This record gives sequence, C-alpha cells and structure tokens, in this order.
Amino acid sequence: MQTRYFALRDYPKGTPSRELFDLRSQELPGLDDGEVRIRNSWLSVDPYMRGRMSGVKTYVAPFELDAPLEGAAIGEVIESRHAHFKAGDKVRHMAGWRDIAQLKGDVLEPLPDMQIPEQAYLGVLGMPGMTAWTGLNRIANLREGDNVLVSAASGAVGSLAVQLAKARGGTVVGIAGAADKLEWLEQHDIRAVSYKGKDARQLSADLKEACPEGFDVYYENVGGDCLEAALNNLKVGARIAICGFISSYNEEAPAPGPSNLANLLIQRARMQGFIIFDHWTEYPHFLEEVGPRVAQGEIDYEETIEEGLERTPDAFLNLFDGANRGKMLVRL
Amino acid sequence: MQTRYFALRDYPKGTPSRELFDLRSQELPGLDDGEVRIRNSWLSVDPYMRGRMSGVKTYVAPFELDAPLEGAAIGEVIESRHAHFKAGDKVRHMAGWRDIAQLKGDVLEPLPDMQIPEQAYLGVLGMPGMTAWTGLNRIANLREGDNVLVSAASGAVGSLAVQLAKARGGTVVGIAGAADKLEWLEQHDIRAVSYKGKDARQLSADLKEACPEGFDVYYENVGGDCLEAALNNLKVGARIAICGFISSYNEEAPAPGPSNLANLLIQRARMQGFIIFDHWTEYPHFLEEVGPRVAQGEIDYEETIEEGLERTPDAFLNLFDGANRGKMLVRL
Repeated sequence: MQTRYFALRDYPKGTPSRELFDLRSQELPGLDDGEVRIRNSWLSVDPYMRGRMSGVKTYVAPFELDAPLEGAAIGEVIESRHAHFKAGDKVRHMAGWRDIAQLKGDVLEPLPDMQIPEQAYLGVLGMPGMTAWTGLNRIANLREGDNVLVSAASGAVGSLAVQLAKARGGTVVGIAGAADKLEWLEQHDIRAVSYKGKDARQLSADLKEACPEGFDVYYENVGGDCLEAALNNLKVGARIAICGFISSYNEEAPAPGPSNLANLLIQRARMQGFIIFDHWTEYPHFLEEVGPRVAQGEIDYEETIEEGLERTPDAFLNLFDGANRGKMLVRL
Repeated sequence: MQTRYFALRDYPKGTPSRELFDLRSQELPGLDDGEVRIRNSWLSVDPYMRGRMSGVKTYVAPFELDAPLEGAAIGEVIESRHAHFKAGDKVRHMAGWRDIAQLKGDVLEPLPDMQIPEQAYLGVLGMPGMTAWTGLNRIANLREGDNVLVSAASGAVGSLAVQLAKARGGTVVGIAGAADKLEWLEQHDIRAVSYKGKDARQLSADLKEACPEGFDVYYENVGGDCLEAALNNLKVGARIAICGFISSYNEEAPAPGPSNLANLLIQRARMQGFIIFDHWTEYPHFLEEVGPRVAQGEIDYEETIEEGLERTPDAFLNLFDGANRGKMLVRL
C-alpha cells in the first residue's frame, strides 16, 4: 500500500515558500507485530510547527529534511497487529502531513466517545484547547473575576481562552485583526480590539479604553506590539502566560523585545513560558472539564478547513497571514 | 533647632545633574506629642530613588520638588515625646537626605542589638539585604544545588545574593565591571564575568563558558545586555527575579528590550518583578536567618562611604557609574 506525504526540501529562512513542501509517495512495508495502519481523515496544522522547520533543536527536535513531516492527525484504523486496536477504531496520533500512517499501536490515542465531530479532538478538545486551558489555569492561575486579555483571540487557542476566561466573570478583551474575527468576539460578549494599522502606543491606548482597570491575566500568542501594549495595561500582580510569539516565527533576524519590561517590576507581574507537552498528563482532567461543555454546545468553536492532502502546506502557511478563524484543519 | 536637607529643584531627564540637588536649611518647630527628633549618623542612597525623581507615580509616589528628599537612614534619638523612645536610642527610618529628622515615633524602627556596626542595617541587614534574600527565596524559589547568575554582583544587593546562593551549593556566577569587583567575587568562590566592552552576544558566550549547564536562577539588577545574555543561558524551568533594571534608569527614551524573550518559552522559564516593600512583613524572618551569619562574620559585606551630608548627591550619582562596591553610604 502507498502512502502520500509531505517532506521538507530545505529549512526555510523567513517565511517558508510553498515550494519547500514536496508531496511524495512511498510503498509501505507490511505491518510488524504491534503496528497499526491508519487512514487519516483530518490533519492539523499549527504555528508551533514553524519552530521545527528551523533546523535547530529548541524544545523539540527539528523536522528531518526529506522525511515525512509530523503533526497531529485523526484517522481510522484500517489494519492492526496491536491487541488494543481493530479496523474501524478512531484514533489520534502525530503522523500527520500524510494520508496513510503506519505506527506502533502504543503511540495512538483512541478517540473518546462524546458525541462530537471527530476533528474537534484536533482543536477545541485537542492540543490547542488543552493549551488554552493550561495557560489560563496552570500558568496564569486564573481566578474568579479576573480581567483577561488574549491576543490572537479568534485563533484555535485564543477562541477557547476567551470563552473559558469569560466564564470566570471578569472583563475579557480579545485582540484580533479581520472584521469577521472582531465580530465573532463581540458576539461572545468579548471586548474586541483590532491591532490593524496600530503601533504599540495606539494599541496600548485602545486596550486601556476597553478595560480601564487593567488586566490580571494576559494570554500571549503573538508577541511584538501586542506584548508591549499588554505590558502597559497590567494590574498589580498580573500573570502573563506565554503560549507563543507567532509575530516573530517567520522573522529572519531577531526583532527587539518590548521596551517596557520595567512594568513587570512596577506591577510586580510575572511572565511565564510553557509548552503543552509538559502538561499532557493533565489531559484527562481537561477533557472531563471542557468536553461536556463542548458536547452541550456551551462552547463555540470555529474551524477553517482546507480540502485535500495537497492543500496541507497552504493551510499551514495561511496561519501566518491570519487567514484562519478557529482551528485550521485539512480534511482528507 | 535647624535641619539641613537636600531638595530637588526639578525632575531630571536622563542622568540627573549635580545642580538639581539643593542643600537647604530650615528651623524645626517644637516637638508635638508623639514626635521624636533624631540626629542622623548614616544615610542610604539607592538606585530605586531615581524612579522617585521621574515626577511620575510608579509603585511609589514621586519626590516632591523643593521638599526634603527621603531615604533610609540611621540615627540617634536626641529628644522624644513618644513613650517608646528616649534620647540615645538608635533607630532606622525613612527621613534621610538630611542631618536632623523630626518624625512621629510610630514610623521609627529600633535597631536590633546584634553586635554589628549600625550602618549594616542600611545594607546587608537592611533593605538591600532583605531584597537579595526575598528575590532568591520568595520570587526565584532558590533550591539546593541551583546554578545562579547575579548581575551587579558586587553591589549592595548582588553581593549578598551571590553569597546566599553560594551557600546552597550550586555554581554561582556574578556579572560585574571593575577589576576589583571581579576579584572580590573570585575571592568568594564566585565565578566572575565582566560585562565591560562586550555586547550581548559576547556576554552570552562568556556566561556559557562560566557555567555550561546554564542557570536555574537569574537575579536581575541591571537589564539591557545582561538580561539578553542571561536569557540565552537558562536551564529548563529557570526562574528570573527582577529586582531592578539600573542600566535603564537614566535613559531619556525607552530602549528596546531583549530580542530573545522566546527563550522563556523554549525553556519554560518564569520572569517576575518584585518590590521589597510588599514583602516587608517578612523582615523579622530574614533578620533571624541572616543576622547571626553577619554577626559571626560568615557573610562579607562591603561598604563604599562618602563623608558628610554635602556629598549625598554625589554618592547617589556614583551608583550609576558603578563606583560603589557593596553598599553606598553617607556618614554624617
């Protein structure tokens, strides 16, 4: 049986060009004992993948050139030589960017049966959702009534973060760009602030207008002017959870940081980076808390879907243009 | 009775000029009930005072123009109408920058009797010492065996921080400038790294050489290139306690921050600002732990002393030229 997969021809400098992603095919060997073959139905593309394209070890090894790229995926078992899996089982795994995956059964996660569409386990109930929940609760120690600011607030992570924060009763402000994203935020009773065409100074002023008392928590996905503006609007004792700095992932040279880090001192504030894989043992706890709310329709999650394996690199590259609302997915 | 005091003629922009500090005198009114008159013997000058000269409220109100400046001081009661104090008592208070202070007795702290020179209560056992201890223990959660980096490591705060850290058994590296400061560090078995004539890249490389495994804790007094270099040398789970950013206090315009904040994410590190006045209720605990070690000569503390009230502004301004080793004091 053939698998078709994307491989990277070279490590990009700056914004990756579409041509670096090469669609290849390969004959799969027969299944070994303990192995499972899966037909992928949904692939995830996520901003963190850009870090694995740098050729440098950060918190995770870089992608290998000319080898199948990796990422979260959902699929159906089509053949199994592992005792826990049989044909027809739905599973989640990390062998994305391809149509057919062949893996040790030990690395597969069976999908829970919660009466929700399977692709939700790549988004609101997958890594992005878990990231939103962990950043707020475990890193920023979100408390009842906290005022919360979220950047990239209509993205896969941000759109859950604003809703989880809102449920705790404080003022929630979301930063986004496009008009439809701002509208989505307003529909959910989130105060929406656009970053478009603004420098840090103007964005600071607009955040102040949206929440004059300042923020107890800042959920950071973007960096750059968003971070600088947020630092100007902290309450005493504020906590910043750094989930990502998407504004800088495609920069060829390091950009200067915010000029107002002294606000951490003045406001006795804390800024902490985290990586979701460190917290994955808490996934069952997250699922138990957030899963039923998703199943009952209390949490709105959006998806931006590209069709077909061939579109996977385009879906990925669109992340950096802000083209997605909610989770960016590829349907096979 | 006359008091002689320094007042600020105007709020400085950039490095304050000596002429902004005006020595004045004033006839003191008679003592009211509950008041105490003190002859100051030692005055403290500290970097944080620059923040109070900005004319802007940060975490503490700005100094009033044309009024006596304030700061920690040690003196002897010469007249008292407060039941707890009598002539001859040694006290600490915040009415520095003057020779005679007249205050409500309620704001005075009697000096503990620990057989150490009284001016130590302005330094190693005063606010700077308490700041070192709090930053390490309460903000950075210093643990046994931690590798610790301290900037301005021979200053009033840093020189205690390196010794407290060293006692916990890990590698301790101190950043300083002048040769005698580096030597002082080496004498205390602290690995000394000079920042002189280096950019952040070179300083990063030198820190890496001094402690190849990286740092669990960074005690930050300086900012600028020191922070950037430290961020390049963090271990996973590192904690940064931000005590101050002395490199920026005299800047006229905000300078860009470090370009490598993404290391907070990669290393899942935490950076937290603190202000010692928030923690002052812990002072007795600090004194109990550190006081006996100072009395027994286990902790080396240095002093840089200017003589005479007239020299107080010079002592203060010298802080920003790195002219002090250990605590900068004025003896009256």
